[in-house]
Amino acid sequence: MGLNTATFSQRRRILRQKVEGGAILILSATYVPRNYPAEVYPFHQDSTFRYYTGLNDLADAALLISEDGTETLFCTTPDPDDVIWTGPVPTNEELAAMAGIAHAADMSKLAASLTQHTLFVKPYDGHLAIRLSTLLGLSVTALAHHESVVLRRAIIDQRNHKTADEIAETEEAIGVTKLMLAAAETMNREGVREADVLAALMGPAIARERAQAFEPIVTVHGETLHNRGYASTLTKGRMLVIDCGAESPNGYCADLTRSFAVANVWDDRQKAVYEAVALAQKAGIAETARRGASQYDVHIAACRALAGALADMGLMRGDLDEAVKAGAHALFMPHGIGHMLGLDAHDMENLGDDVGYAPGTSRSTQFGLNALRLARTLEPGFILTVEPGCYFIPELIDRWKAQRHLEAFICYDEVEKFRNFGGIRIEDDVLITDTGSRVLG
Amino acid sequence: MGLNTATFSQRRRILRQKVEGGAILILSATYVPRNYPAEVYPFHQDSTFRYYTGLNDLADAALLISEDGTETLFCTTPDPDDVIWTGPVPTNEELAAMAGIAHAADMSKLAASLTQHTLFVKPYDGHLAIRLSTLLGLSVTALAHHESVVLRRAIIDQRNHKTADEIAETEEAIGVTKLMLAAAETMNREGVREADVLAALMGPAIARERAQAFEPIVTVHGETLHNRGYASTLTKGRMLVIDCGAESPNGYCADLTRSFAVANVWDDRQKAVYEAVALAQKAGIAETARRGASQYDVHIAACRALAGALADMGLMRGDLDEAVKAGAHALFMPHGIGHMLGLDAHDMENLGDDVGYAPGTSRSTQFGLNALRLARTLEPGFILTVEPGCYFIPELIDRWKAQRHLEAFICYDEVEKFRNFGGIRIEDDVLITDTGSRVLG
Repeated sequence: MGLNTATFSQRRRILRQKVEGGAILILSATYVPRNYPAEVYPFHQDSTFRYYTGLNDLADAALLISEDGTETLFCTTPDPDDVIWTGPVPTNEELAAMAGIAHAADMSKLAASLTQHTLFVKPYDGHLAIRLSTLLGLSVTALAHHESVVLRRAIIDQRNHKTADEIAETEEAIGVTKLMLAAAETMNREGVREADVLAALMGPAIARERAQAFEPIVTVHGETLHNRGYASTLTKGRMLVIDCGAESPNGYCADLTRSFAVANVWDDRQKAVYEAVALAQKAGIAETARRGASQYDVHIAACRALAGALADMGLMRGDLDEAVKAGAHALFMPHGIGHMLGLDAHDMENLGDDVGYAPGTSRSTQFGLNALRLARTLEPGFILTVEPGCYFIPELIDRWKAQRHLEAFICYDEVEKFRNFGGIRIEDDVLITDTGSRVLG
Repeated sequence: MGLNTATFSQRRRILRQKVEGGAILILSATYVPRNYPAEVYPFHQDSTFRYYTGLNDLADAALLISEDGTETLFCTTPDPDDVIWTGPVPTNEELAAMAGIAHAADMSKLAASLTQHTLFVKPYDGHLAIRLSTLLGLSVTALAHHESVVLRRAIIDQRNHKTADEIAETEEAIGVTKLMLAAAETMNREGVREADVLAALMGPAIARERAQAFEPIVTVHGETLHNRGYASTLTKGRMLVIDCGAESPNGYCADLTRSFAVANVWDDRQKAVYEAVALAQKAGIAETARRGASQYDVHIAACRALAGALADMGLMRGDLDEAVKAGAHALFMPHGIGHMLGLDAHDMENLGDDVGYAPGTSRSTQFGLNALRLARTLEPGFILTVEPGCYFIPELIDRWKAQRHLEAFICYDEVEKFRNFGGIRIEDDVLITDTGSRVLG
């Protein structure tokens, strides 16, 4: 049980069957220098390399699957003197065997094994781009034009459908993330700094050697959607928003958001907005269970529920179906309802919109909807987030109000009263099943 | 007092006076993607850009100082819609004013301001290399040939000499690092995992929003000098080695190492090896205080003291001056005695060996001495580490013993008895003063 050598071998066989043509080249991640090459960011394996090899810690390597299916792992052979810095490390042959790969070779041999028919996907990282450019004799800018769309889509299709082992890994990561949130909640007291909450949040993850799927958001300014920094102090009357996710031992990501009234003292407005977001999430999750629903439908269902609740509060008005169609709710929720979740928090975002949009479809340009990363028809095995929110963003309110934007649907005078409210978001991770859907964890 | 706008203006004026010729270009760091561009590593400013601007958080920007001293800050102007993700941000003009820079412009204007005479230093980071290559119309590999050695050496000379404000920042960072070490020490109990110790260590740093100068080492396998991972369990009889350093609010680094017997239960061998390393450190620090001493002299003084103590323990023998000259001590301490410390843990390591070696001198190729990052004559204002260690590295012992390497100086039969000992290192940060030197913190 669990992810093992056979898993990775099978994944590679399936990929090779799906993709005709030249050899398939997949690079591992490199060490990324922080301010000089010997000081690197914590190593994070390339997700695609990880998916096909399970070699979570191997930098500066490459997998080559030839047209006839012969597999070779190319590794940077360590200098014998490196043992004083790194301790004993596996040989290239041992590394290949761990992944079920028949052949091993030194990275210096890789360039000679490549041809102009070698299939690859465009790297997202500058260091990988420089490496691939050197290997292939192409300029960095030319890489995009030579990538294999067939390979990219085959990887996406395979990785989009999670197996039982991958689901178990995701649930394990969610379990650790809930421990993190519980530790953070103990610090939800007036006068505590966001950074203190973060320290508590990180404890259970560090003690389990867990990477974070993304930099945690811990903020009393939820209205700034990707707030960086943890300098504010928890004061009564504000909402504390925590959006975080641990990785499982094999790199599968959790992504949960919880919103708390500071010191757990809720006023009526906080209760009402929280209820509105909870209703929106319920409607979204219900829609994920409908056979044939797309994540676009999930988005609209959640936004429609949010708009209904906001109308009950006197913040929106008019025909709410029309309001949602026009994007009026995006004043309050200017982001998408969720994204694919897997070895990346935004799974395979480096591979582009083919992950979330079926070939031939593309993103809307409407404000709010243009941030919807996933819209395609849901299929069993997809794991995705459902994360509605409601935010009062002063700059956005001012801009829309000055333009009298969609004023048929928005009660600006009432909205004005919430301009210092902050924001609320609730997020869970949902698996699409053969019979419906299931909230994980 | 403290680092302020006037500080950064003055630093730029001094640099411009030192470097004749074309305009000086200094790029800020970019956001570095982890597994896709929207998910980045915690932002870490380029140290040289930080030194000359104080703009700790500004990504994707550039400082240009024209030949006549006119200064312009080029920034990536945010999309107005970004306010929902980032909250309100300063304008380009406000950012320039914070650094005392007279002019501000959009990054799109930068390329037109550059000529083939623009002076720059070679980037250490792939993303910066691609950016600079595009800006200058040079290939990535050509950048190294076009960098300005005069500019590089002027930056090194200026940054190598720390001012009172920089010393105060370093001491502040050392203060936080000592809080981290104290928190870690409370976890020094049998049966605790290294990762648990790490979680305790990180608490005080996270709660103060402090970046780490480098990934902390927390290990009961000190014999692996740059041990990554925290999976081992603390067991009695082992040494726990912790090497870590917080950054100050403006990015100045601390770098301390402490070694503890697990559960604070010391056996005779641990006491003896610890004493040997402490003696070596004392000898090294004493040498830093000698006017005209070089860090090479500091290295040799520490190694000689270590060799003396190891001879007393029966591990080394013969003429110990000759032993150190031949590099026999490097079986036990295969690294250098220390490095420059500043805005980087290995200060300006990205700028190469000119930092630690005077022009015209270069590193030894002798094993051990080839890892000495700093050898030049010490000058007032230098901050450097003094970090002797003593390690029993089984692979290295086996290799040397099989070759009967330097057996006139090494008692391999006695060394063999220590092969499972692990390692010990003690590290402090030392300021060279007008009258001698001072251990900081």
